[in-house]
Amino acid sequence: MKWRVNVTVRLKEGLNDPEGRVIGKALRNLGYAVENLRVPKYFEFELESESPEEEVEEMCRRLLANPLIHSWEYRIEPVS
Amino acid sequence: MKWRVNVTVRLKEGLNDPEGRVIGKALRNLGYAVENLRVPKYFEFELESESPEEEVEEMCRRLLANPLIHSWEYRIEPVS
Repeated sequence: MKWRVNVTVRLKEGLNDPEGRVIGKALRNLGYAVENLRVPKYFEFELESESPEEEVEEMCRRLLANPLIHSWEYRIEPVS
Repeated sequence: MKWRVNVTVRLKEGLNDPEGRVIGKALRNLGYAVENLRVPKYFEFELESESPEEEVEEMCRRLLANPLIHSWEYRIEPVS
């Protein structure tokens, strides 16, 4: 069966996000009252699988994220 | 008023996403039946604003995206 998947990979609480800090500062310099800007990694893909949750969890651990520094969440929905 | 915002910035249809292609290939090499993997840019932040939709749209045009090659969508919800 085929699924549409998206995965969001965030740095764990308390870890620095230098890219986010720079972008947040640039937006404030343009006059926007932005705070706590973060730039998670975000992946979208289709997956052919009989056990999509298990496979996506495994993909995160093996390749998409680093369990030491990241947390992740995903959304999986059937492709109609 | 304060808002929690996320913005997803995607390459327009038909434009190459080299990072996505490499990650998709790596996942297939690990045995996952992944297709059409894309890596949109994704931003999360808080915004103090009286006209958040207008400001976020403007931020996309001015800094977060390049209107020539990107499309974008955002979600804006009040911070409780």
